[in-house]
Amino acid sequence: MTFVDINSLEEREMVPGYRARFVHSEHTTLAYWNIQAGAPLPEHAHPHEQITNVLEGQFELTIAGQVHTAGPGTAIIIPGGVRHSGKALSDCRLLDVFYPVREEYRTGK
Amino acid sequence: MTFVDINSLEEREMVPGYRARFVHSEHTTLAYWNIQAGAPLPEHAHPHEQITNVLEGQFELTIAGQVHTAGPGTAIIIPGGVRHSGKALSDCRLLDVFYPVREEYRTGK
Repeated sequence: MTFVDINSLEEREMVPGYRARFVHSEHTTLAYWNIQAGAPLPEHAHPHEQITNVLEGQFELTIAGQVHTAGPGTAIIIPGGVRHSGKALSDCRLLDVFYPVREEYRTGK
Repeated sequence: MTFVDINSLEEREMVPGYRARFVHSEHTTLAYWNIQAGAPLPEHAHPHEQITNVLEGQFELTIAGQVHTAGPGTAIIIPGGVRHSGKALSDCRLLDVFYPVREEYRTGK
């Protein structure tokens, strides 16, 4: 698929309050998140590197124990294997870029 | 750098009418484009795969000879080596994801 209508893709709730649509290229996965105000993202890590882009809203990220609040115009680089957690301070739209492909996101939970 | 204030980065005009800021992770390059209405993007190719996200505006892309118009909510996957060109049908904001890193974008033109 070359042109992807993101809104036509199935949206899945991966964590309570965290709904996402996924686009996979040969080497990367892009995750388009709609996140509910107040929803916590439990601490976790994955071997994939991640670049989070805040498109709308305010999102609090804790990376390796450091807490930051990010809004639109912020990109957050999380190297592979680094523990991180988060909390939506308002309704948020985020775009995450993962390398390599998040194979576990190709199908249902 | 973990938290990047994209608007504080130097913006460079890479092609007339195409200004960009770049964020590089270990494996990918993200390009945040501000494009002037009417500006043409000459046909070109690169070995990097590219996923274009239209954030604002209408952008016409020609990929391997096929013409499509893309607006917000569209992701366009361009495999490495595939020739493509474009034209901004309005002022546009695009976010391109490249794998691997566009090393030639790390410094001046």
